[in-house]
Amino acid sequence: MKNMFAVKGNIIFTKEFGVYEVLENGFIVVEDKYVKGVYSKLGKEYDNIKIIDYGNSIIIPGFVDIHLHAPQFANLGLGLDKELMPWLESYTFPEEAKYSNITYAKKVYSRLIKELWKFGTTRACVFATIHKNSSKLLMDMFHESGLGAFVGKVNMDRNSPDYLVETTEASLFDTEEILKEYSSKYSLVKPIITPRFVPTCSTKLLKGLGVLAEKYKVPVQSHLSENIGEISFVKELHPEAKNYASIYNDAGLFGNTQTIMAHCVLVDDNEIDLMVKNKVFVAHCANSNSNLTSGIAPVRKFINKGIPVGLASDVSGGHSLSMMDVIVSSAQVSNLKYIESDRNDKPLNTAELFYLATKGGGKFFGKVGSFEEGYEFDALVIDDSDLPIFKALSIEERLQKFIYTGDDRNIKERYVAGDNIREPKFI
Amino acid sequence: MKNMFAVKGNIIFTKEFGVYEVLENGFIVVEDKYVKGVYSKLGKEYDNIKIIDYGNSIIIPGFVDIHLHAPQFANLGLGLDKELMPWLESYTFPEEAKYSNITYAKKVYSRLIKELWKFGTTRACVFATIHKNSSKLLMDMFHESGLGAFVGKVNMDRNSPDYLVETTEASLFDTEEILKEYSSKYSLVKPIITPRFVPTCSTKLLKGLGVLAEKYKVPVQSHLSENIGEISFVKELHPEAKNYASIYNDAGLFGNTQTIMAHCVLVDDNEIDLMVKNKVFVAHCANSNSNLTSGIAPVRKFINKGIPVGLASDVSGGHSLSMMDVIVSSAQVSNLKYIESDRNDKPLNTAELFYLATKGGGKFFGKVGSFEEGYEFDALVIDDSDLPIFKALSIEERLQKFIYTGDDRNIKERYVAGDNIREPKFI
Ligand SMILES: [Zn+2]
Ligand SMILES: [Zn+2]
Repeated sequence: MKNMFAVKGNIIFTKEFGVYEVLENGFIVVEDKYVKGVYSKLGKEYDNIKIIDYGNSIIIPGFVDIHLHAPQFANLGLGLDKELMPWLESYTFPEEAKYSNITYAKKVYSRLIKELWKFGTTRACVFATIHKNSSKLLMDMFHESGLGAFVGKVNMDRNSPDYLVETTEASLFDTEEILKEYSSKYSLVKPIITPRFVPTCSTKLLKGLGVLAEKYKVPVQSHLSENIGEISFVKELHPEAKNYASIYNDAGLFGNTQTIMAHCVLVDDNEIDLMVKNKVFVAHCANSNSNLTSGIAPVRKFINKGIPVGLASDVSGGHSLSMMDVIVSSAQVSNLKYIESDRNDKPLNTAELFYLATKGGGKFFGKVGSFEEGYEFDALVIDDSDLPIFKALSIEERLQKFIYTGDDRNIKERYVAGDNIREPKFI
Repeated sequence: MKNMFAVKGNIIFTKEFGVYEVLENGFIVVEDKYVKGVYSKLGKEYDNIKIIDYGNSIIIPGFVDIHLHAPQFANLGLGLDKELMPWLESYTFPEEAKYSNITYAKKVYSRLIKELWKFGTTRACVFATIHKNSSKLLMDMFHESGLGAFVGKVNMDRNSPDYLVETTEASLFDTEEILKEYSSKYSLVKPIITPRFVPTCSTKLLKGLGVLAEKYKVPVQSHLSENIGEISFVKELHPEAKNYASIYNDAGLFGNTQTIMAHCVLVDDNEIDLMVKNKVFVAHCANSNSNLTSGIAPVRKFINKGIPVGLASDVSGGHSLSMMDVIVSSAQVSNLKYIESDRNDKPLNTAELFYLATKGGGKFFGKVGSFEEGYEFDALVIDDSDLPIFKALSIEERLQKFIYTGDDRNIKERYVAGDNIREPKFI
């Protein structure tokens, strides 16, 4: 019986949006890296497998963060007093320029990956910078850590500062080099096409990236309709375009291969229809959308239309890597959106947001974010014994209490694709 | 030189709203429980005093939380899927009923006070329950801990469940007993008149409480215009009233003695004028207002009008006792309010919110929340050396980074009124 084991504990996950599956003192059997099944008692066929008993702890799928900027981790919690466009110029671009220096990149990326590990993020979709070498480094380091990630070298060939810009040709050339080298290099870490956003990418660059996405069958991530200032700039740059989304779409970067668009705060109905048609993922960045005064994305509307949605920290527009924090913030803004929108779009409850933070975003990685059979076994073991609890709580309530009042100290173990992942120690 | 000492470190506080005073490697001289002065070098007159050197740490005023419900701490992070009125009935009232049991009260209150200590809250305005004995217990325990607090036995004589209601007479009698016994008992812990809110207090009860407030010269705390459902209920109960605030005002409970009103999300212009005239404090409860789908209070407007404002966790409508969390949440909703309000009310920046979380709320306690001469020395020593910092930061930036990304682990020492307060150990 090769590579088979079981973990035992209070299992909770969401197969369907907003519906908890709960198994008190249950077992998850893992074969190779996949979930074989979830059982209240182990059948005879599993008599000889190793059982790891986590006692009264809670076992949940690992958190999936589908949008964050690795270099901006150095700015975490700083400079949140501006809106998107001046924020990029004052804080973000100067920081990102530093990643031409591989030593500096290694210093920040080491700490970032440790913190992701700490907060129980087992999979992430990550923007690096325009720099080829530190982008490769980041992929190597994610691989070394054992966490799963899509990592994108960023593309920017216009409206960018002199110290952080590429030629169209170099941008495409470096991107293709990474695709060739990394597409099959690692099983849990993959490259992703990453035009920063329309303002910094010429049409020629976008079309070139669309060709690469198709040629190498790789996914795409970018930003869409985050902030008023950004949107008017896009309109100015592309008076001919039907809307912001269509510019990506015309370049083959809007669902031709699997695509994530971050924010989508201010998308119009035509853009939403295109997202539905092309199955474009939304990365919902509640903290960032509040911090940078962008607004509240219409997440309930996206979900009702069938658009796939995941949650995201959007560091460092977001100030916290903790997906528990991101869930709470997403709940809060969905409540505020509900009031704002004449009480049409029902607020998102904890079970719904938990789904988005696990299986919702996990879908972008394949079968990830659930304990259904055939899913990669990504899991967190939560010990809530030191939280202030004064009465018997259901597993659902314990999960909610952990999300709202716990922190990284309550996360005792992390599994990714069947492996127990220890704190990364980079040399 | 009796009872004089100095602390040394990177000092930052706000004398004026939104304006940091910063002294790198400075000294705060403390005489008895008061700040004597803040100096970059110590004068000869202080040659022989004890100096406690906190090295590169940051020294800030203690946090002041001007609205929270002690018994609801047991529900922290639970049941946030309802709006105010059903939330009270489903979760809050059943929990509060348990505090007729003094043993249970002691268990929860011990942990609550430890957690307040942990998060660096040095002063708090607290609702207990209707129960006289556990309200007294809470005052005794706050005194024992060394933290400062106004603690109110709650009054409720109508529209309350059978298991959590008083007669008007008993409510007034028990309140007066506490006022007699506790008004001068402790220096840092004081009683406060605490009608829950208009829906649960008859006019006779309110007027009786107004008489007691005046007779014993004690302050008042209650709730005002938090949620749509609550406000329509108040209108139904008092068709004769000019507005919600006037009901408190007519009973002598709206600034006749120093008064805090929590929430004030939906106050109208007449109510705002009355708050200005009567110098009524607003307890701004950003987390709670989002969690219970109440809305966003117009804090910038209050401040522009000269209304005193402090920040509050409002546990357990709020899910976190951390005033760092409350500052972040307050920043986020003020950004969202700005967008909502056609960009009139400028968002609150970190320095402004830091002022509200220290000196703003501290004013309710007298000279508290600043390091100006004559202020009671409440302070936190912040060690940010393990936060991910990759470049030289100013003290202001380090404070911001602590607020946005740090937690209780970064708080190394807590002072209240000149005393270094150790973790409370209740027997
Ligand atoms: Zn982003
Ligand atoms: Zn309250």
